[in-house]
Amino acid sequence: MVESVAFGLTKEFRDRFQQALDERDNTFIQQNLDGINAADITALLYEFNSEESKYVLDLLVVEIRAEIITDLDSDARVAFLKTYQPDELIKIIDHLDSDDAADILNELPIKVREEVLAGLDKVLRSQVIDLLRYDENVAGGLMAKELVTARVSWTVVQCIEEIRKQVENVSKFYAVYVVDDFNKLLGKVPLQKLILTDSTTLVKDIYDPELISVQTHLEDTEVASVMRKYDLETVPVVNVYGQLVGRITIDDVVDVITEQAEEERQLMSGISEDVEEDDSIWRLTRARLPWLIIGIVGGLLSVQFIGIFEGDLMRITAIAFFIPLIQATGGNVGIQSSSIVVQSLANPGFVEDGLWGRLTKVFIVAILNGFLLALIVLAANMLLGGESNKLFVVVSIALFAVVLAASLIGTVTPLVLNKFGFNPALASGPFITTINDLLGLGIYFLTIHLIL
Amino acid sequence: MVESVAFGLTKEFRDRFQQALDERDNTFIQQNLDGINAADITALLYEFNSEESKYVLDLLVVEIRAEIITDLDSDARVAFLKTYQPDELIKIIDHLDSDDAADILNELPIKVREEVLAGLDKVLRSQVIDLLRYDENVAGGLMAKELVTARVSWTVVQCIEEIRKQVENVSKFYAVYVVDDFNKLLGKVPLQKLILTDSTTLVKDIYDPELISVQTHLEDTEVASVMRKYDLETVPVVNVYGQLVGRITIDDVVDVITEQAEEERQLMSGISEDVEEDDSIWRLTRARLPWLIIGIVGGLLSVQFIGIFEGDLMRITAIAFFIPLIQATGGNVGIQSSSIVVQSLANPGFVEDGLWGRLTKVFIVAILNGFLLALIVLAANMLLGGESNKLFVVVSIALFAVVLAASLIGTVTPLVLNKFGFNPALASGPFITTINDLLGLGIYFLTIHLIL
Repeated sequence: MVESVAFGLTKEFRDRFQQALDERDNTFIQQNLDGINAADITALLYEFNSEESKYVLDLLVVEIRAEIITDLDSDARVAFLKTYQPDELIKIIDHLDSDDAADILNELPIKVREEVLAGLDKVLRSQVIDLLRYDENVAGGLMAKELVTARVSWTVVQCIEEIRKQVENVSKFYAVYVVDDFNKLLGKVPLQKLILTDSTTLVKDIYDPELISVQTHLEDTEVASVMRKYDLETVPVVNVYGQLVGRITIDDVVDVITEQAEEERQLMSGISEDVEEDDSIWRLTRARLPWLIIGIVGGLLSVQFIGIFEGDLMRITAIAFFIPLIQATGGNVGIQSSSIVVQSLANPGFVEDGLWGRLTKVFIVAILNGFLLALIVLAANMLLGGESNKLFVVVSIALFAVVLAASLIGTVTPLVLNKFGFNPALASGPFITTINDLLGLGIYFLTIHLIL
Repeated sequence: MVESVAFGLTKEFRDRFQQALDERDNTFIQQNLDGINAADITALLYEFNSEESKYVLDLLVVEIRAEIITDLDSDARVAFLKTYQPDELIKIIDHLDSDDAADILNELPIKVREEVLAGLDKVLRSQVIDLLRYDENVAGGLMAKELVTARVSWTVVQCIEEIRKQVENVSKFYAVYVVDDFNKLLGKVPLQKLILTDSTTLVKDIYDPELISVQTHLEDTEVASVMRKYDLETVPVVNVYGQLVGRITIDDVVDVITEQAEEERQLMSGISEDVEEDDSIWRLTRARLPWLIIGIVGGLLSVQFIGIFEGDLMRITAIAFFIPLIQATGGNVGIQSSSIVVQSLANPGFVEDGLWGRLTKVFIVAILNGFLLALIVLAANMLLGGESNKLFVVVSIALFAVVLAASLIGTVTPLVLNKFGFNPALASGPFITTINDLLGLGIYFLTIHLIL
């Protein structure tokens, strides 16, 4: 069946399905899930609790069951697999690719993991043990061991024989990797070339030696940018000796890119866990409170700080009117500056300008922006009239200084964070924003105190 | 050559290359670019001006030249192709896939476009004309016309004959699409299956009818989520009659996902154009000013608003101390709320809770957060002492109200934006933040005016 729209189910169907579950109406469940894509069943299962989901899964063939468990979010899976016995897990994991099997084993409690590992098919077990050595954020942790290799000395017919042997284990493959007698990667033969070549031809005469590979220790985000840059669907992974040890497919990298974007959004908006609207009220509160409290601490410091200038405020009440203007502008300038740096770090150019070149440019842009904004505010204040003209000039001077300071901090912070291995997007988050707010306030009140 | 690290060049090489360019040292240029991947040469070209880049490209074979021009950023390409004559463009575009050719033609001035179209290879021309009908943000605008199709009535050997004919035109293909006599899509045959099947077998006996396709009018972001959900490397595109009209490959979708993330970052940080650090100072200033001015307008409105309460401020100066605390908290709560909604919109669940269910939950979380924060602030104020206890109670009441209001606005705004076809991430940007700031200020001063 060619499906031209994604499977989308109504609330009515969900309710009917729940009823079937309550009544243990296996016929209804099986009939309605027959022929449905595993990814759609996964989406359905998020509607039910772990016991119910397990009941549904047990009615399906083990291949579909395995696919669905791979599809689940890591968090959901950890909770869900608690309902499973080790022997049930073994049966499912035996149907997975080595990379998915390793991911799931990594999530299990150590005792269960050992029990499951011992029960796995021998080939898969040794592959998984090899993969478990790698951190999940490097190429070695992303790769799968399933691939088809051919010796450079073989003929095309030997290649095809090897494909026949491997075809059950390797789900997505578009090329045969060519290695020498020491398993050193030499190149690849695309499947279409195999199809069109005479079967007695030697591999060494048709393989393509132009091939991009990555080393096991390359970071996942860098694997993603290599695959993006060179438009690759799969990339072979080699160890330090250049020996072929696995391959990474683009679907894993798409997940890396999506997670990167989500993490960035969370850092920018001050949410400390990976939460969604449908999480529990407690979890949502817990994810939001820490950063809110940091903002509150900043706010309480402001209270103390402004308190110092109570004398000035009592003398000229209008000083208070401009606090929001100064703070909002400082905040906006800071976030813009950080964001531009984050953008550049995500798309590295060819030759770097160097820190000083960067800062000089930021400074010029800040002076331009600051001057224009200060002028606009001065003109508007004059027009709208009110208190003393002298205060207006001081406000514009302070605004100019705040724009300069916020630009510099906004630019330097993500660079420093990046240098020390933190995500630079953190610089647009509430912690740095709070510091910027305090700084803006400091500049404003000091300027006033000194000049007025 | 198997490359295990990406091509990374030093400043020294860039300078040496510049010198070779100045001296028109063709031998140096050609020798140093020989065997280098097109994507790496593209990165190098960003270092030089249009005339210099064209000089380098003209020294390369036309296939590499075509690949590099496809690789360029759209902005850079528009500027760069101005140095080309129509006949030079025709030669290059004739080497491109139909989707890339259509993208480039879309960027040319209409007169040049018509001239180039007229000169293109006949098959490519009709493919491109078909593609130019589609908006670039829908499946039809992403797809390429190059694909290999087989009639369901054919044998495997006929299939392979067709592949042989098409192999020069279709660069990445992993499956043959199977259609009926009216070109209606029926399913696919993966290449590995073709390799392993006897050549007299009929296509109808081996094709896989389980196939996800998308319609021409599906939005690009939805194409991306379908491909992500079902882990697809390619997806066939059908028209409303179910006829096969093209296919989309994952590399185009990776670009869509990356651009989405960039757009979101820009909306969240108030940058109005797609700028990077290495853009001109004028462009950087222009991209940042509009949103800064919106913030300034909000700030000037605050000035007027606080002015109304000058009497209260003169009576109790300490009111001013709490302005930053109230505003920062309102801002943080609003951005967190929007971000959680944006997250949920990006990963749609199975059955929606409905607007009222959502709002109820947001309300409960807001009451919890607001209550806790108000309590913390009250306790801190009491401890740090100073002015009247009555003011502290009023501040905490206002803070609680601001958290409730900011949560509601932060939740409703992205939902409304999404409903009317805007990017919901706009809700975390400076425009909405400015409105939130004003609202927070309003709640604070009104509470004080009413109670104190």
